[in-house]
Amino acid sequence: MATPSIQEQIKAQGEVVRQLKKDKAPDEKIKEEVAKLLELKKLVDDGKSSGQFVLKCPKGTRDYDPFQMAIREKVFSVITSCFKRHGAVAISTPAFELKETLLGKYGEDQKLIYDLADQGGELLSLRYDLTVPFARHVAMNNIKTMKRYHIDRVYRRDQPRMTLGRYREFYQCDFDIAGEYDPMIPDAECVRIVFEILSQLDLGSFVIKVNHRKLLDGMFEACGVPPEKFRSICSAVDKLDKAEWEEVKKEMVEEKGLEEVAAGRIGEYVKLNGRLELLERLTSDERLTAVPSSVAGLEDMKLLLQYCKLFGVLDKVSFDLSLARGLDYYTGVIYEAVLTGDPSKGKEGGVPAVGSVAGGGRYDGLVGMFNSQG
Amino acid sequence: MATPSIQEQIKAQGEVVRQLKKDKAPDEKIKEEVAKLLELKKLVDDGKSSGQFVLKCPKGTRDYDPFQMAIREKVFSVITSCFKRHGAVAISTPAFELKETLLGKYGEDQKLIYDLADQGGELLSLRYDLTVPFARHVAMNNIKTMKRYHIDRVYRRDQPRMTLGRYREFYQCDFDIAGEYDPMIPDAECVRIVFEILSQLDLGSFVIKVNHRKLLDGMFEACGVPPEKFRSICSAVDKLDKAEWEEVKKEMVEEKGLEEVAAGRIGEYVKLNGRLELLERLTSDERLTAVPSSVAGLEDMKLLLQYCKLFGVLDKVSFDLSLARGLDYYTGVIYEAVLTGDPSKGKEGGVPAVGSVAGGGRYDGLVGMFNSQG
Repeated sequence: MATPSIQEQIKAQGEVVRQLKKDKAPDEKIKEEVAKLLELKKLVDDGKSSGQFVLKCPKGTRDYDPFQMAIREKVFSVITSCFKRHGAVAISTPAFELKETLLGKYGEDQKLIYDLADQGGELLSLRYDLTVPFARHVAMNNIKTMKRYHIDRVYRRDQPRMTLGRYREFYQCDFDIAGEYDPMIPDAECVRIVFEILSQLDLGSFVIKVNHRKLLDGMFEACGVPPEKFRSICSAVDKLDKAEWEEVKKEMVEEKGLEEVAAGRIGEYVKLNGRLELLERLTSDERLTAVPSSVAGLEDMKLLLQYCKLFGVLDKVSFDLSLARGLDYYTGVIYEAVLTGDPSKGKEGGVPAVGSVAGGGRYDGLVGMFNSQG
Repeated sequence: MATPSIQEQIKAQGEVVRQLKKDKAPDEKIKEEVAKLLELKKLVDDGKSSGQFVLKCPKGTRDYDPFQMAIREKVFSVITSCFKRHGAVAISTPAFELKETLLGKYGEDQKLIYDLADQGGELLSLRYDLTVPFARHVAMNNIKTMKRYHIDRVYRRDQPRMTLGRYREFYQCDFDIAGEYDPMIPDAECVRIVFEILSQLDLGSFVIKVNHRKLLDGMFEACGVPPEKFRSICSAVDKLDKAEWEEVKKEMVEEKGLEEVAAGRIGEYVKLNGRLELLERLTSDERLTAVPSSVAGLEDMKLLLQYCKLFGVLDKVSFDLSLARGLDYYTGVIYEAVLTGDPSKGKEGGVPAVGSVAGGGRYDGLVGMFNSQG
């Protein structure tokens, strides 16, 4: 139950003084009330000049007011029902993990992890995503098979870009399938789930880009990238949604020391996107089919696109060779959903600035990383 | 999608070796497979002896599995519906705050706050409760009146006692009323809400203890406690739910230097509990009525108990002079709900070990602390 703020007290006290003057009250009485007013004002000035206290949320975070919460509640309920409809159960993990649990999982992004202060006891870090904690949970409890969802906050000490929706504390809505299944069935189900949720949330049109880590690796090999450069070239490709090809190429050649001719070949591939016709074209590409990794990737992609057709989502899918995804732990199909706006909403098509709204991929080795360490 | 754990690999490899021996395979082949088996076993031993990696949740935290999540979801939905029925809206605040936002709000418990590591930029701490962030939100947005609920996790670096339900990361379900109202109406509504939720959750019988900070202060003054000792004597009284009076008295006299006779007088008061009859008795207690603070407290309590009667919850309420509540920021009515078990469930009455399950109080100065600093 709030007491009046200092500003309100100053205003009220100002009123008192004005009234006394108006009423021609005794000088002494007026002096007394003016002194009180000055004291209140001094409090404010002290606060300002000392600069000790700022009333704000930490950088890159925000409060949600009741209107924003109502929207969030509605969105989460759409997402949760979809996850449950697909047979997922919920788990929850702590907001922080042992620091060592998170080490070596995120590649370059490891620098974005928030550490807790060492106050004695274990070294802890705030979770960077919900995937690594899920893998830790699966390994710890020796779980063989599980469809789980988890909607919760994650933390990244990145440069915030509020207008693009990039915060240091934000929610992820995760759906994961652990266990052994027929090839590409779980992968296609994930694409279907993204389709269902984005359709139901009614955010305008969207496309679900798909690609395959093995195909990417095979493509790099076919283009003449030395194996030790696969990762760094992959993260250069990952920038193609924000940067022009020429810029990315420059990074590959000048910063990462890739041969001009290899970069040129990559440039030919990453401009390709399509569906079954692209698959056919790549399947008859002699440079790619000479590399076992790309053959394996193309076989998976063929099966995936077939399932996507059966699941009725093929027309929202774009097989896109420029899709790379930053994280280290992906090993198979990767995907990313992008809002493309509503053409009825003016010439810019009402395309929202946020861009990518969902992403994921297959990670075959992550749980094993914990098991082999345990 | 999990790869086999190291233990599974060892088991499978053991099978391979056994089968080869059974089949009387060539010695060289057997040797080769035994070598693989030994290598796998070595991996496990290395892991154990290096002691570098432990697969666990941080101390005092836990995962929730799908069964626990189903219960949590049900409990939260009961609590949320009650809060909404009473007209509350939801807000959400970040899991961490500027360190200075939390400073000076929790008395002795400040040492339990988790700090984030200084990685450059602002100094941050995980929130200790949802009350101080709410007060910060109210002050920051200059909100005059708001009924809000907030269900979220808080963090305390306390000694965990899992069997008593005391964790380092746990949920609080907060309902707060900010603004100016007729005396004791919001306070009585809070008691009513605790009653509704605990009844609906069907946790067995319970009692809602109520007391008043002004009455406690008045009682201390009346018993001859010097004002500078009010806080420390108050936190000694706060231990009466876990410790015997003799032990608490010893703390007051030997550790905190209170006179024996003053402690003796306090002992007479803190054993009292009841309802309207206790109120009458205290109202005619000359020692108490000589102190303005206890008179003010008793007047509030009279009104509170009258509203509790009107709200149909008086028979669950116990006016209890031993209730003190640890936090610094309470200024008026305080309350705490305690499960008392179900007599039909055996001679121990099925009383759960957790004890206190809800608590709160009026805090008149907290928002003002931010405003006057801002």
